Amino acid sequence: MQSLTLVKIGGNVIDQPAALSAFLSSYARLRGPKVLVHGGGKIASTLGSRLGVTPRMADGRRITDEETLKVVTMVYAGLVNKDIVSRLQAEGVNALGLTGADGNIIPAEKRPVKEIDYGFAGDIQAGSIGAETLASFLESGLAPVIAPITHNGKAQLLNTNADTIAATVAEALSRRYDVTLVYCFEKKGVLADPEDDDSVILSINPASYRELKEKGIVSKGMIPKLDNAFTALKGGVKRVHICRAADLEAIMQGNASLSTRLEPA
Amino acid sequence: MQSLTLVKIGGNVIDQPAALSAFLSSYARLRGPKVLVHGGGKIASTLGSRLGVTPRMADGRRITDEETLKVVTMVYAGLVNKDIVSRLQAEGVNALGLTGADGNIIPAEKRPVKEIDYGFAGDIQAGSIGAETLASFLESGLAPVIAPITHNGKAQLLNTNADTIAATVAEALSRRYDVTLVYCFEKKGVLADPEDDDSVILSINPASYRELKEKGIVSKGMIPKLDNAFTALKGGVKRVHICRAADLEAIMQGNASLSTRLEPA
Repeated sequence: MQSLTLVKIGGNVIDQPAALSAFLSSYARLRGPKVLVHGGGKIASTLGSRLGVTPRMADGRRITDEETLKVVTMVYAGLVNKDIVSRLQAEGVNALGLTGADGNIIPAEKRPVKEIDYGFAGDIQAGSIGAETLASFLESGLAPVIAPITHNGKAQLLNTNADTIAATVAEALSRRYDVTLVYCFEKKGVLADPEDDDSVILSINPASYRELKEKGIVSKGMIPKLDNAFTALKGGVKRVHICRAADLEAIMQGNASLSTRLEPA
Repeated sequence: MQSLTLVKIGGNVIDQPAALSAFLSSYARLRGPKVLVHGGGKIASTLGSRLGVTPRMADGRRITDEETLKVVTMVYAGLVNKDIVSRLQAEGVNALGLTGADGNIIPAEKRPVKEIDYGFAGDIQAGSIGAETLASFLESGLAPVIAPITHNGKAQLLNTNADTIAATVAEALSRRYDVTLVYCFEKKGVLADPEDDDSVILSINPASYRELKEKGIVSKGMIPKLDNAFTALKGGVKRVHICRAADLEAIMQGNASLSTRLEPA
């Protein structure tokens, strides 16, 4: 199978123009078919505040009311996605910006209301991803750039966590490609000591992950990311790295000491 | 050659939810390959005002400073484009939202500063349109939905008039398809008397167009639309209609009394 790299770039990097530029340059140099999934960063919250829409969070996830959905659609699918697409085009990458509604690549279901009503939040499954459409883009030399907005097929846009999109799309594409999934953010990986940037845990498997959770070393925001990533590994994704955006190229060239690598067992 | 319909839907319809829904339903029923180009409507101005960005216009065109560019990118490429895409998906159309940066389908040049500095306005040419990429989308059964944002290939997004995009993309596609270009808006066509909605001029050719301009019957906002449309006709587009959004289906079924049709000579 052909290799494919699916990179998630986290919010904090998107908020820093210089870091984002450097990241996109190194992303542009990655060879072979590739997919980029991006978050939205603080821009959505900042814009929301300027418009009088206050962000509400629960368990690290945004609660998406109607006004918030409009804000994130504007920021993620408009401002951030098109900024990234135009910068990648300038780097020689034929980027194609997408939400889950475009080409119906990510159908979702509105999350059922249990203890918390997340509003217009969309839950997704690897089996529903439009992998054929994504593959046809990739075969045409296009590089999909996915914003974390999905839809329910009934004209309702939904907000879906970008980490979840990355893992789910990676799993769906693993039936056609040898997929490496890379979560890029501002830290060097999963840290044993959050105060020590060099305390990167080089490898985590399901058993050590349970231990890290029990000891409280893996923190709230990291849990959904790792849960998603282990699901993707189980589902067929070959490799998962969690690393600093600035180390993307070195990791793809095989430098194992620069990331947390997830192992299937 | 296969037939293709390229429809431009104007701003005023986008501002009216019921009219937009009705239009999208009828657009969904059009057979064969199709492309939709949309404007942005008043939402951009409304959002701009809420953010303290005041729109400035010259000759019916928006002057695009840096803040305005951000607002139109959010509204056109984010809010409006994804709303239309998700509604078309619900109507069974496999819509694919695009700006000119996506897949590099509409490269543009920043408009040179002459009497007026239009700011980040992009001028485009039929010869530069990514017709091959658009054709590959159409052949995959996708229906491109184009927002009026372009780019210069150097990481700069630009604002381009939606009427111009419609005419230029229509011309570029006319080398591969038998193209009908339809400008849909809230009026029944070009009116001989702006006060009389039924005074539709059924046919205009270059000679009668000159006359209509001399007599002042064709007004400021309509001139760039018609200029673009005549250029498209010269460039290979087979038919151009200017009509009410609500009459789209009837016109495509051959009802000639419901639109202004432009004739090449």
